[in-house]
Amino acid sequence: MKKILFCISVVFSTFFCFAQNNFKNDSLFIRKMFEETMTNAKCYENLRILCTQAGPRISGSPEAEIAVELTKVFMTEAGSDSVFLQKVMVPKWVRGKRETARIMLPSKKSQPGVIEPVMQNIFDVPVCALGGSVATPEEGLKCNVIEVGSKQEFEKLTSQDVKGKFVFFNVPMNPKVARSFEAYGPAVFFRGNGAILAASKGAAGVIIRSVTHSLDDFPHTGAMKYVDSLPKIPACAISTKAADLLSRMLKTNAQLEFELKMNCKLYDDVPSSNVVGVLKGKENKDEIIVCGGHLDAWDLGEGAHDDGAGCVQTIEALRILKAVGYKPKRTLRFVMFMNEENGLRGGKEYARLSKENNEKHIAAIESDAGGFAPDGFSSDLTIKQKEGMQNLYKLLKSYGMHDFDQKGGGADISPLEDQGVAMFGLMPESQRYFDYHHAASDTFDKVNKRELEMGAFAMATLIYYLSEYGIQPK
Amino acid sequence: MKKILFCISVVFSTFFCFAQNNFKNDSLFIRKMFEETMTNAKCYENLRILCTQAGPRISGSPEAEIAVELTKVFMTEAGSDSVFLQKVMVPKWVRGKRETARIMLPSKKSQPGVIEPVMQNIFDVPVCALGGSVATPEEGLKCNVIEVGSKQEFEKLTSQDVKGKFVFFNVPMNPKVARSFEAYGPAVFFRGNGAILAASKGAAGVIIRSVTHSLDDFPHTGAMKYVDSLPKIPACAISTKAADLLSRMLKTNAQLEFELKMNCKLYDDVPSSNVVGVLKGKENKDEIIVCGGHLDAWDLGEGAHDDGAGCVQTIEALRILKAVGYKPKRTLRFVMFMNEENGLRGGKEYARLSKENNEKHIAAIESDAGGFAPDGFSSDLTIKQKEGMQNLYKLLKSYGMHDFDQKGGGADISPLEDQGVAMFGLMPESQRYFDYHHAASDTFDKVNKRELEMGAFAMATLIYYLSEYGIQPK
Repeated sequence: MKKILFCISVVFSTFFCFAQNNFKNDSLFIRKMFEETMTNAKCYENLRILCTQAGPRISGSPEAEIAVELTKVFMTEAGSDSVFLQKVMVPKWVRGKRETARIMLPSKKSQPGVIEPVMQNIFDVPVCALGGSVATPEEGLKCNVIEVGSKQEFEKLTSQDVKGKFVFFNVPMNPKVARSFEAYGPAVFFRGNGAILAASKGAAGVIIRSVTHSLDDFPHTGAMKYVDSLPKIPACAISTKAADLLSRMLKTNAQLEFELKMNCKLYDDVPSSNVVGVLKGKENKDEIIVCGGHLDAWDLGEGAHDDGAGCVQTIEALRILKAVGYKPKRTLRFVMFMNEENGLRGGKEYARLSKENNEKHIAAIESDAGGFAPDGFSSDLTIKQKEGMQNLYKLLKSYGMHDFDQKGGGADISPLEDQGVAMFGLMPESQRYFDYHHAASDTFDKVNKRELEMGAFAMATLIYYLSEYGIQPK
Repeated sequence: MKKILFCISVVFSTFFCFAQNNFKNDSLFIRKMFEETMTNAKCYENLRILCTQAGPRISGSPEAEIAVELTKVFMTEAGSDSVFLQKVMVPKWVRGKRETARIMLPSKKSQPGVIEPVMQNIFDVPVCALGGSVATPEEGLKCNVIEVGSKQEFEKLTSQDVKGKFVFFNVPMNPKVARSFEAYGPAVFFRGNGAILAASKGAAGVIIRSVTHSLDDFPHTGAMKYVDSLPKIPACAISTKAADLLSRMLKTNAQLEFELKMNCKLYDDVPSSNVVGVLKGKENKDEIIVCGGHLDAWDLGEGAHDDGAGCVQTIEALRILKAVGYKPKRTLRFVMFMNEENGLRGGKEYARLSKENNEKHIAAIESDAGGFAPDGFSSDLTIKQKEGMQNLYKLLKSYGMHDFDQKGGGADISPLEDQGVAMFGLMPESQRYFDYHHAASDTFDKVNKRELEMGAFAMATLIYYLSEYGIQPK
């Protein structure tokens, strides 16, 4: 009995020492990566180049192809074993000339004998076409407006109420929700589905309150949908300040008219690419860990936070791992996904090829929530899987990251889900993300160097940990 | 025996139910405060007014007295039971005309027979006087420069090396430290003590690399010290970009001259005030919880993050508690401390009066780390005291706050320490704080509305919890 107890205790303490040593070594290695990041990171400069030279790189645009070429170079410079392109057909939607819109109040009739001051009855307001929208007639679309504050309100309207008008979905992001991303879903419903809803009751067009917490003058674009069974009507977003103005004017001038001019157009699909960098695994090389952001960005700003940040952080993670001399046990892929914003074609093609080639992805990590200071990682891990990650979580806490409880991964990696891949999303501080999201204000100057770098470090650390220890199956 | 066990179990389950009910009620009450904050907060608008109407409100300035009057009004509007001023004498240092500085390279001597291009050998660089510095002679101070990168380097220098020169302390904040505030201390040492060190070896003046992580064109000011036993020499901060420029030029032109013109002046002390709002306690009214920020700000920017944010958050906490109809058990004080930046006179006077009047402060909370998204609270609590706070920490986690392990309180409340008061500091995300700290860039537009409001909510929540449950003595 004593002997057995002795043996157990030897085995246990050996394991304990091993685990302790691992933790200590990991801690030192991660420290080395942090110091490498905070002194030699290239991601901020790469983001500047991406924003300046590629800029508003919507799928199918020449700018998107410049972004492909630039990030191929960045990946090579970062030390990728190889870089290859995955060809993919993408939609090509072109905004054309910047949109204009005006609120036109009915003229006051002058009373006989009364000299009235000239009224200003036309108000220019900032709008933008939603991505995928059809154009208005060249002379513009001018009609009355009916404001709607919720799904329930819309359901109560008859075709008579809506016919021939603009439906104005004035639904703000709920300020009472602490995490911005949780407030995004319900508000963005109207951006995605507003044109379908409005057309189903005979509307002539649709106006969406920009989906942002910020009260400002920027219209925020984003994807929208049509269905073949209904007329395709022009759909635009209006800035939040102008939404408040329009709403206020409608209260006293229900007969006001809204004039919208848009000349956007959807063309046939065109070829584009995902860009893939690789660090080959030395031991379990058939097990793949993929990490990425999306290369396309809406055409109004520079796509600095969405998702230039995620792209350059992905490449930086590669650079950090190489720079500290890490030899990965598993194979690491660093992917610039094309066309997240209006089609997800890049993400879908990556997953299709993975299945076709019988690849075994064990984990996927996405950064697509802005280049702000990282709070932790969201994931779809089971409780059992999370147990195996506790040491990593403990290590990241020393660097100010504390939240590993939120659910989620990322859009580009989501098509891998049915291959049983563990999903992770870099989770930065989220309060400012929607201030810049899909708007002209999403420019390089909105990104803080250290915050961006700390996110890249977090990704490198997670990749290292998964590469070393793998992850339990679900 | 059974009876005893039964009694114990009844007592235990009663207590358990009580505790559970408390937690549930607290959770609901805190939710109510959050919703009140995110829909009706006044702090952002108050900050705009403070930054616009009072602006650069250094102690002893007319702007500081405007800030006193403004925040008195804000407190009254927020629903304070009463508002009073605590008179305090403060230093009056005036920057005067904005400083100028130039790097002057020695002219190239033209060689006979060679026509040389005209050299640009004068470079204007952005500098500012450190707070408390003496002026230069009116015609400026022009001398050679000796660069120093660390204490050790300085110690090795002889008086011969230093005499009659500018000592240029070019010590950056350490980028390898994850938490910005931990990197601040070692770098700011030279701002505080540089003039004493340099004068001890006969220097004519001192130049400090601005204490910030940011590589930019703003000089960052801040307090500095003299000792009576040494000559008082002019001390300035140079922007980080210009520090790099000067350092680079010194490598190839050790004989270059630096010309500095400053006409700042220290006057006699003048009267000023702390502003104190009160919500009287209903049960343990002799127990006081004090919460505050500092009203003075450096004179270069608008003091938006430092510490306009802390001031308006303090007032907002008052407003939230009133707006949701909270009747505090303990007495709550909301204080705008005067003169944190260059004397701490307000904080010291507050603590002196507390002692003189035999007041019993149980806890003190400060917000003086910027109006960024809150990560949690630092504190000086013992392990036993922290046990009593676990429910609060759990509740704050639902609002994205996770870190309650860091040490610290705040400068203004620190003089209360020897009265056995539990100290708390609101701890926002810290990466951007020093980008704006003490510089002209610390303006209202750098503050995000929701981030600011969430900090105010965190403070109201902590105040509520302490008011309801008190805190164990150390």
